[in-house]
Amino acid sequence: MRFSKSFIPTFKEAPKDVVLKSHEYLIRAGFIQQIGSGIYNFLPLGKRVLDKIRSIVKEEMDNSGANEVALGFVTPASLWKESGRFERYGKELLRFSDRKDNVFVLGPTHEEVITELVKANVKSYKQLPLHLYQINLKFRDEMRPRFGLMRAREFIMKDGYSFHSSFEDLKREFDLMEQTYSRIFTRLGLDFRVVFADSGAIGGSGSKEFMVLAKSGEDTICVCDTCSYGANLEAATRIKIAPNTQAPQAEFAKFHTPGVKNIEALAEFFKITSFWTLKAVVKKAIFDEGKSALVYFFLRGSDTLNTTKALNAISGANALIEASEEEIKAAGLIPGFIGPFALRNLTGSPYIYFDNELQDAGNLICGANALDYHFVGVDLSTFEGIEYKDLVEVQAGDLCPMCGESNGGKLYFTRGIEVGHIFQLGTKYSSAMEATFLDEMGKAQPFIMGCYGIGVSRLLSAVIEQHHDERGMIWTSATAPFSVDIMVSNIKDSAQLAMGEKIYTALRAQGIECLLDDRAERYGVKIADFELIGLPFGIVVGKGLQKGEIEIIKRRDLSREVLKISDFVALVAEIKTLVDKCH
Amino acid sequence: MRFSKSFIPTFKEAPKDVVLKSHEYLIRAGFIQQIGSGIYNFLPLGKRVLDKIRSIVKEEMDNSGANEVALGFVTPASLWKESGRFERYGKELLRFSDRKDNVFVLGPTHEEVITELVKANVKSYKQLPLHLYQINLKFRDEMRPRFGLMRAREFIMKDGYSFHSSFEDLKREFDLMEQTYSRIFTRLGLDFRVVFADSGAIGGSGSKEFMVLAKSGEDTICVCDTCSYGANLEAATRIKIAPNTQAPQAEFAKFHTPGVKNIEALAEFFKITSFWTLKAVVKKAIFDEGKSALVYFFLRGSDTLNTTKALNAISGANALIEASEEEIKAAGLIPGFIGPFALRNLTGSPYIYFDNELQDAGNLICGANALDYHFVGVDLSTFEGIEYKDLVEVQAGDLCPMCGESNGGKLYFTRGIEVGHIFQLGTKYSSAMEATFLDEMGKAQPFIMGCYGIGVSRLLSAVIEQHHDERGMIWTSATAPFSVDIMVSNIKDSAQLAMGEKIYTALRAQGIECLLDDRAERYGVKIADFELIGLPFGIVVGKGLQKGEIEIIKRRDLSREVLKISDFVALVAEIKTLVDKCH
Repeated sequence: MRFSKSFIPTFKEAPKDVVLKSHEYLIRAGFIQQIGSGIYNFLPLGKRVLDKIRSIVKEEMDNSGANEVALGFVTPASLWKESGRFERYGKELLRFSDRKDNVFVLGPTHEEVITELVKANVKSYKQLPLHLYQINLKFRDEMRPRFGLMRAREFIMKDGYSFHSSFEDLKREFDLMEQTYSRIFTRLGLDFRVVFADSGAIGGSGSKEFMVLAKSGEDTICVCDTCSYGANLEAATRIKIAPNTQAPQAEFAKFHTPGVKNIEALAEFFKITSFWTLKAVVKKAIFDEGKSALVYFFLRGSDTLNTTKALNAISGANALIEASEEEIKAAGLIPGFIGPFALRNLTGSPYIYFDNELQDAGNLICGANALDYHFVGVDLSTFEGIEYKDLVEVQAGDLCPMCGESNGGKLYFTRGIEVGHIFQLGTKYSSAMEATFLDEMGKAQPFIMGCYGIGVSRLLSAVIEQHHDERGMIWTSATAPFSVDIMVSNIKDSAQLAMGEKIYTALRAQGIECLLDDRAERYGVKIADFELIGLPFGIVVGKGLQKGEIEIIKRRDLSREVLKISDFVALVAEIKTLVDKCH
Repeated sequence: MRFSKSFIPTFKEAPKDVVLKSHEYLIRAGFIQQIGSGIYNFLPLGKRVLDKIRSIVKEEMDNSGANEVALGFVTPASLWKESGRFERYGKELLRFSDRKDNVFVLGPTHEEVITELVKANVKSYKQLPLHLYQINLKFRDEMRPRFGLMRAREFIMKDGYSFHSSFEDLKREFDLMEQTYSRIFTRLGLDFRVVFADSGAIGGSGSKEFMVLAKSGEDTICVCDTCSYGANLEAATRIKIAPNTQAPQAEFAKFHTPGVKNIEALAEFFKITSFWTLKAVVKKAIFDEGKSALVYFFLRGSDTLNTTKALNAISGANALIEASEEEIKAAGLIPGFIGPFALRNLTGSPYIYFDNELQDAGNLICGANALDYHFVGVDLSTFEGIEYKDLVEVQAGDLCPMCGESNGGKLYFTRGIEVGHIFQLGTKYSSAMEATFLDEMGKAQPFIMGCYGIGVSRLLSAVIEQHHDERGMIWTSATAPFSVDIMVSNIKDSAQLAMGEKIYTALRAQGIECLLDDRAERYGVKIADFELIGLPFGIVVGKGLQKGEIEIIKRRDLSREVLKISDFVALVAEIKTLVDKCH
């Protein structure tokens, strides 16, 4: 493409209120422009990147056996009422009425539409499995759209939905999708991690996220320094912490502990590490129809409660909020001195959960539910009916659950941008929408579903967050709108222009996508735009031409190499080799 | 693709309330399914056709030098207020508010968005011309969505917009687009006509529509039996009608014509053809802010007023409605006896228009504005200040305006489906939105614009309206989702299945897209689905295999040919030749 004939408006100044480099550069380099809050036009360069990403996603999805469809974007509210999400989904679901006062939504996701479609057309287990996907528009009315394409309201997503007659088959497809997604992100040239994600709230038996590693990422992820293990904070686990100090040996007894109101003070008082103390965390759980109840979590004083894990522990709870001191006192407890013994006296069936790592733990010190008193020598194995759950938030340095035992891999935290999410949904939607198939016994069963998403337009941002420098973007070879930017230094020099055209034609004949910068601009403008736009290679046809030389610049490190043009065929072959090698 | 692994739900029964065959077949063959009124899911086969059309459109648009973009679909109302269309556009413009009560519309077309984009980025005539296009979602809240994809609410359109510094350059691009569109529709395998279209209402200097010829078409078009001339009824012209009877020779006089209230009776009374009579048509024109006025149109009694031409004749009028007898009488006129003489007495500046073909006509008979009286021997050349306009509706048999004189081409009517529209917009939007560039003199000028649309999803219907039979669809080679349907008659016969697979693999290696019907279904089901789905060729691997034979069926005429498989390489080459020849 000729720069002079295309629409690539570039800017020197960063737009206002821009935080991320990807946001700044995509706008400054003329890839996108905002039309309204969180709504963007894709200009020619941005559209080309989008198409490249789209075609890689499509190719890999097709190879995996999934069938591409295009689902209606404007969706009748009735479908969303069937699933129950019309009411439950927050304000991100944009609802409106058409001219006949029928209510519709702008599709933020398409579980309802696809479930309805499959319900209407698939009757037997013989027609399963089935995986349908689309690469299509989505709209989510975000409260605070920001960071450019990273958190837009209108965006392009690849969303796929699979239907199965057994959970085993769902698991097979889920694993296949993990491989497929990994191939997609690898082909795109991204450094990413597959991480375990929380799937507690929706139920279902597992979910994984694909995280592009970048300092600017919104998500904290926990990864192993030795193996490929990764997880979101709310899904991360570890090898059970072993005691690194001697257990405080003591018979069960009540101790006067004046002024000792927190774990630090307690450890200090008994001259032990907080590992041997038992921490009680009281929260208030919110259930359907606004019902609420106090919930009690116990974990080692050296650990921290992860609130998502805590919420997932409570069947039926929608949210966890802080419990006030008054509420705790009203329950008959003494804040700062709560221990498991006191809870025995609570009426009803209180919600009490112990962290998994406390199973049968002994030699503990805990609150005695009396001001300034603690128990020592507490042995949990003497308790009956304790419900153990995974409640702890892992810490940097904890042992990796996958390789910690065998290889001593340790966990650490890093930041990532979520670009994909795969999910074993189970029967959540099919049950709600009465979408069933006949199994081998002729019995109606709800479809067992998986869903799989990739943030296609977000990927433009993710690539750039991972690949940029202070001068601009550095596209990977698979995502670059063109491979080579041929800059004619001075188009008034007819020899330069002719050589630029010649190289342009020759490289295109080799299947190399080129941008020919034939604008009536200074060299300085062209090189700045090259650095900003970030095509993998730049070729400068300038004054060196008089000596029979051109220059090739590698965008990644801005290294330059002088090439002789005496043997033009060899020159073209040399450039092609460089381009092919780059990824 | 294997039929057994894909999602192609076919139906024997036509859905209810379906009028068009394309609508019926696209649903029955599993290409589309409705999700809401005028909103469709594209299933895998429909998506494939859509992609094929899209890629041909893209290729030709790119070759023409246009730049592809993707514009925001959800569009701020503010842009539509700037152009004035937020108020003027009817209920087809779906308006709604987001969570922050900002008003948006679902883009039914994108003149506003593109004008804003170019206004913000293009400053100089040096950056022109510029043509930006997209292939993207549109929404129009039609009062009566119907005919499947033909008149949907949510649909895919290719919309392009060009920007120029002169009308000459706009005309060049307009002509280029006519060629580009013609190539697109030719490649798609369509029999179409380019027709002159009405552009009066928007102003601008010309517009053409691309009409796929089909009996079921919603539009009546007027075409020449000899040359390529075509036009919409409201834009059609003809060679001026020559008198085919002797003119009634008479001095100017007033005649008593008792009971003669219409043209037929008048011609009968004077024993002349209606060609020599002058017909007055009175309408009421509606202007901005609800103002209205009576308007008077004169044409030969043998002609019919075309209401669109009539409306275009009146500067500033938005609509034409019937005038009541009371209103005509209140103006001082006698219905049935209105003639041009009477209008001389009207006060103000009445709106009076004569048809072009009446210029300087003589020997006419017209109403005398007195009950039961007419004038004879009327000579219009004696009138002063007559405003002549093209007002007549052409009739079948009229002489073609392009070749009627030279080759005697005659016009006739046929029906078409509008699939494209190209338009010389001029400065309508750029003026309203103050989008200007600096011309060579450094003076700000509004951009001169063209716009160009193709109904991409509608094309699926158009192809089928033109190409189907009583058994199903007949896709053209460029639009077919696959070229060949390989039907394994009985998959339990391992030899048949193996041969089906072998042919499938071999043809795919030749670059031929194949559907392998490997379902556990009877042969009858497979052949019926082949006929319904309408791939260009079917190959039957059945009982003939024992004799070393397979059958190939050409969908267009359902002709069958037996092929020997003894020389497999030759067989594949033979099939490839057949497929390549077909279009």
